[in-house]
Amino acid sequence: MNYSMIVYILGWVLNIEGLFLIPPCIVALIYGEKSGSAYLITMVVCLSLGLLVTRKKPHNTSFFSREGFTSVSLSWIVLSIFGAMPFVISGEIPHFSDALFETISGFTTTGASVLSDVEALSHCSLFWRSFTHWIGGMGVLVFILAVLPLRGGTRVYLMRAESPGPSVSKLVPKLKSTAMILYGIYVTITVLEVIFLLVGGMPLFDALTISFGTAGTGGFAIKNDSMAGYSTYLQGVVTVFMILCGINFNAYFFIISRRFKNAFRMEEVRAYLLIILASIAVIAFNIRDMFPSIFQTVHQAAFQVGSIITTTGYATTDFNIWPEMSKTILIALMFVGACAGSTGGGIKVSRLVILVKTIKKEILGIIHPRSIKKIKMDGHPIEHEVMRSTNVFFIAYMMIFAASVLLLCINEFDFTTNFTAVAATLNNIGPGMELVGPTHNFSIYRGLPKYVLMADMLIGRLEIFPVLVLLSYRTWKR
Amino acid sequence: MNYSMIVYILGWVLNIEGLFLIPPCIVALIYGEKSGSAYLITMVVCLSLGLLVTRKKPHNTSFFSREGFTSVSLSWIVLSIFGAMPFVISGEIPHFSDALFETISGFTTTGASVLSDVEALSHCSLFWRSFTHWIGGMGVLVFILAVLPLRGGTRVYLMRAESPGPSVSKLVPKLKSTAMILYGIYVTITVLEVIFLLVGGMPLFDALTISFGTAGTGGFAIKNDSMAGYSTYLQGVVTVFMILCGINFNAYFFIISRRFKNAFRMEEVRAYLLIILASIAVIAFNIRDMFPSIFQTVHQAAFQVGSIITTTGYATTDFNIWPEMSKTILIALMFVGACAGSTGGGIKVSRLVILVKTIKKEILGIIHPRSIKKIKMDGHPIEHEVMRSTNVFFIAYMMIFAASVLLLCINEFDFTTNFTAVAATLNNIGPGMELVGPTHNFSIYRGLPKYVLMADMLIGRLEIFPVLVLLSYRTWKR
Repeated sequence: MNYSMIVYILGWVLNIEGLFLIPPCIVALIYGEKSGSAYLITMVVCLSLGLLVTRKKPHNTSFFSREGFTSVSLSWIVLSIFGAMPFVISGEIPHFSDALFETISGFTTTGASVLSDVEALSHCSLFWRSFTHWIGGMGVLVFILAVLPLRGGTRVYLMRAESPGPSVSKLVPKLKSTAMILYGIYVTITVLEVIFLLVGGMPLFDALTISFGTAGTGGFAIKNDSMAGYSTYLQGVVTVFMILCGINFNAYFFIISRRFKNAFRMEEVRAYLLIILASIAVIAFNIRDMFPSIFQTVHQAAFQVGSIITTTGYATTDFNIWPEMSKTILIALMFVGACAGSTGGGIKVSRLVILVKTIKKEILGIIHPRSIKKIKMDGHPIEHEVMRSTNVFFIAYMMIFAASVLLLCINEFDFTTNFTAVAATLNNIGPGMELVGPTHNFSIYRGLPKYVLMADMLIGRLEIFPVLVLLSYRTWKR
Repeated sequence: MNYSMIVYILGWVLNIEGLFLIPPCIVALIYGEKSGSAYLITMVVCLSLGLLVTRKKPHNTSFFSREGFTSVSLSWIVLSIFGAMPFVISGEIPHFSDALFETISGFTTTGASVLSDVEALSHCSLFWRSFTHWIGGMGVLVFILAVLPLRGGTRVYLMRAESPGPSVSKLVPKLKSTAMILYGIYVTITVLEVIFLLVGGMPLFDALTISFGTAGTGGFAIKNDSMAGYSTYLQGVVTVFMILCGINFNAYFFIISRRFKNAFRMEEVRAYLLIILASIAVIAFNIRDMFPSIFQTVHQAAFQVGSIITTTGYATTDFNIWPEMSKTILIALMFVGACAGSTGGGIKVSRLVILVKTIKKEILGIIHPRSIKKIKMDGHPIEHEVMRSTNVFFIAYMMIFAASVLLLCINEFDFTTNFTAVAATLNNIGPGMELVGPTHNFSIYRGLPKYVLMADMLIGRLEIFPVLVLLSYRTWKR
């Protein structure tokens, strides 16, 4: 294990975090808030530590998948620990474990909160909370890849460990350029949403924070009723942008480079949109008596479906009081998640498509034992390695899910609460059902279960293996 | 597709079912019950139809996996339809769909009932209900293999389609002898339990029916309070025999043939016993305030753990009122299930052992990319085919689980009820939690959800693929 390279990367993570702490400082200046000093202190700490460590590049730059996986998971932990400091220093979230939960929830774009009154927070803290979504959405390491001069090998291993989905697809031959293009698309979407929200009369502060939460598919709101208080137009804009941010960013790259055919041929995106439309239809039918007009019914169904499948987690209504069918569909969507290569979490639509095709192939193999048919996706055969890793991901995912539900029951809440609490954190969504429903929060969990949920958020965002590699004793054995 | 061979096998299934209907007729004679005529009629119908079809063996005896899978799933459907007839004819379960549910639940060794008052049934019906467990436990096709002169190829494909677990292991080179040995062990265990129960002062009728339900890991009781009314000794005997019937029968074969080392080296059995002990310990600690003595607490925990992990489903207490931790552990055990090659259902311990090893191998592959380590079980490397089929099984299992929960919500019951109803049927257990808990029954489900649960029981018992092959349009395409 090349410790010096890992420390070097962690140093850069601290440097970047220091820079990302500048915007909340500015917000504090604008609103004249004392809490700003907490952000300033943290910024100074991050930059001093980071610059100290990154003074010079290590001599030994050997870097393999082991180093990639450990540095990615450590990066996210370091990021969250330092990101939680301002909340503690300012006293706005006095307990460190609460502040850490909130920050992990932010960076992993989960949006599960331990706060019952978010409106009591200062503007700079609200801004930072939402900004962590935006940072975490695209990935900090991707950002580092885009700006830092690193060897190709190092880049590949970092990218593979952090990026979501069954396979890493380079948009262009150079990974550095790929990372820059991704961030370009990301910034564009965010700016567009801010503009659309401003047009609808939303204050700039709200527009910025909500756009951060949408683009990163996070879900932290700045109001206690999440998005319920905004106009139908504003809710509609957020619905559309949530769904857009759940699409594989490759599709946008194809569109930018005028390869429209490639974009429309993406099976994952088509399956994703189909699932959304079908879910909206069934839920709208199921809740038809709860809202005054068909338009409102479809609008509410669309917002909640878009929010859950993209793993954002905003709410415009308490869907916990919806009929069981709608609730069960929403729970199912929690697992489905968004497209690979988007900012959303969950199992990912492409993985589910591959899994369904695997089952189909098995059945075909029984019926025609001698048929040799490769599983295809977007017209190309899927590599064996991708199939295998998809299977293993799914197995590990389910095992971790089951283990988490078992550990959560220490707190003796009902099964649906625990089940959806794990679903909402492991899939990086935010609200679950019952006691962790949209009108409640995660402060009910105390002790071990709280840390289990924090681990689940990280495991979900980093897609399991970076965290498992970090926790494996073999990694640290000479 | 060789239709004539499939029809021929179905004919034999009817013949065997006709013979299996003799015992309930005898019971009716002994108790002088009118319902006996319903069993006599059904017996005559089965034998006439069966003998008609099996008059002569088809010319074309070609038989491959496609024929194997379809004839196995069709056999179980035919078996259940005719097995339901006596309930309808006698008027004891007047609605056909209820009678079919009860019979599928019997043959698949689920033990989920639609009856609120089983004590109202005649003795011959109670006997038949429990006897279906015993027939289904070892498998009807296995019985046919043991008695019928079939070609080796036909045997292999039938065995592979019906027997539970990730791989079919022949105990002896000849499949016919393997089937006979399995039935021999099965009969021995059943007889031993009957003797132990009679020693404890249980009436013969009770001892027989309860032993059928234990050996087949079924769970239909003949009392409304399941096993709660029997003495602690009798409950203890059932606990031990349930756990024994959840062990891979290969272990008994090893013991009979004095290969004790092989028996004790079976990783699956060790994992199975370890899970049982750990679950009993945690649950006993969790429910320590609910029972008067430590002995009673451990006894109750052991009975329920043994009943659920072996997928039997008897109950000595209403575990639905136990604290959440105990309930969640029981729900988790529903999925674990018993050993492969036992009469129990669920995912099976050996599959879970393989899956855990798969995850470990993946992590090792990241840490040491050049290491080539084969996954081993009982000291031997696991074949790639077994690994692959285990993965596919798990994937298909989870997909069917999710789809079933979604379809069940049409009836608008709460999530825990629906979730555990599917868990209890797909894993062939019997009772779930909440509205389908041990003091309730499955009569609450109406319409489509009821048929979904019936399908789940068959899918669970036949381990998914026979049913999927039957439902695939490719099977029937020329």
